[in-house]
Amino acid sequence: MRFVSFEFQGRRAVGVREGNQIRVLGNEPLEALLARGANLSAYARETAGELLDAAEVTLLPPLSRPPKIICVGLNYADHTKESPYEQPNYPTLFFRVHTSLVAHAAPLVRPAVDDCAGLDFEGEVAVILGKGGRHIARADALSHVAGYSLFNDGSVREYQFKAPQWTVGKNFDGTGAFGPDLVTADELPPGARGLLLQTKLNGQVVQSASTDDMIFDVETLISIISEAITLEAGDVIVSGTPAGIGWAREPKLLMKHGDVCEVIVEKIGTLSNPIIDEVR
Amino acid sequence: MRFVSFEFQGRRAVGVREGNQIRVLGNEPLEALLARGANLSAYARETAGELLDAAEVTLLPPLSRPPKIICVGLNYADHTKESPYEQPNYPTLFFRVHTSLVAHAAPLVRPAVDDCAGLDFEGEVAVILGKGGRHIARADALSHVAGYSLFNDGSVREYQFKAPQWTVGKNFDGTGAFGPDLVTADELPPGARGLLLQTKLNGQVVQSASTDDMIFDVETLISIISEAITLEAGDVIVSGTPAGIGWAREPKLLMKHGDVCEVIVEKIGTLSNPIIDEVR
Repeated sequence: MRFVSFEFQGRRAVGVREGNQIRVLGNEPLEALLARGANLSAYARETAGELLDAAEVTLLPPLSRPPKIICVGLNYADHTKESPYEQPNYPTLFFRVHTSLVAHAAPLVRPAVDDCAGLDFEGEVAVILGKGGRHIARADALSHVAGYSLFNDGSVREYQFKAPQWTVGKNFDGTGAFGPDLVTADELPPGARGLLLQTKLNGQVVQSASTDDMIFDVETLISIISEAITLEAGDVIVSGTPAGIGWAREPKLLMKHGDVCEVIVEKIGTLSNPIIDEVR
Repeated sequence: MRFVSFEFQGRRAVGVREGNQIRVLGNEPLEALLARGANLSAYARETAGELLDAAEVTLLPPLSRPPKIICVGLNYADHTKESPYEQPNYPTLFFRVHTSLVAHAAPLVRPAVDDCAGLDFEGEVAVILGKGGRHIARADALSHVAGYSLFNDGSVREYQFKAPQWTVGKNFDGTGAFGPDLVTADELPPGARGLLLQTKLNGQVVQSASTDDMIFDVETLISIISEAITLEAGDVIVSGTPAGIGWAREPKLLMKHGDVCEVIVEKIGTLSNPIIDEVR
């Protein structure tokens, strides 16, 4: 099943897609449903609700305030090669905060700072946990996944490299596109393996890889992260981007006002966002 | 005024210190009070409540789930000199997540992983925002501060340096001590400037500096961070540690089971925590 969070006539709600329609399930956010241990598919089957035309709603990120947004850097070998880093044998993790999130179809924002030639794109698969835990065994890890979505980890490279930590370059307001749907895990191969991931900028393919190329696969990420950190239902793991980023090209290819960027992963969908300049 | 969050007879509450007693204000958490724009001092003056003996309550972190916990690395020049880094001319930021927090008097936990000789100490001043915003001018920044507290940014150095980002080494469960009190800003010099900060391990002074030595002072941090990220009431900025960390010593001095670590800052108080080994 495909779950969406949206606004319609001024109210926020959660629904499930049925063809070109969305069946409204209620106004309890997905993060709250997951936190109380709801099985999303069972909840959708048991809940009657009004049908809306999908074209009439304004999508929100599937979760607007996940407990944590854990991003994985350097998780595709060909992307590490185009970066200034050696491939580490441990996941490279950083956090995003919810203030950086935008929904499908909402604009990604190039900030109005002197030192930002453009926003870089990073197409990624997002993993949404349905069950938390600590010291989760790799063999059990996929049972903790509620579903998958897409992420465009928009990066302000100049700020990413101003100091030894990438934090600011990865957390400008309006730079992390997340959505459109939470696709339940049963609709996808285990661990979202073997799926074609593509990023397109103005219709041109700029990244193309298989999710099989992840160095740390989804179950390994869950297991390793939970050795250190208690994972919670609703946590989002953004699983890394393959080669092709704009900063590594000669000349650089950065997103600017008027561009449209799409992240497309087989069976998950298409996350599409226009780019705009911040107005101050 | 000095606000505390605590548990007493199985319920969680917020109170204000009155000598050796705590006056109970209610069960609305400090993060919720701050999020709805409450002036904490006015709230305390207007609220009657039962008096408890401070020795009878179990303290919690002042805020258990701040919207963001933004930590500043390399913010004292003498600490940068003992690190493997050059002093950047932009703040080095990283996030902590709430799952890493422990209260005053609660144990800091050395994780049961093969690769952790001990937990390192980092005494710091924590800044708690009472008002959010974006593009906050440096001249206005201190009006966004509700108060100050203390932080021990317990670090698993082996994990901090396994990959290019420090995230995991800074986010093991039970490694970030926060408290004991939220001291309102009016009790301290502006920006908590000119205060002696000391860390003691088993009674021995291991860090000693003035908060004047911060490279980026509190108002500059708020202003620079908010150029990129929308700050929110309840956000916590952990403002960096001075020289003396255990990892930079020869031989290394790391915290182990049975140790006690204190962070002491004039006018703010003492944050004291025993260290225990994780039991699995």
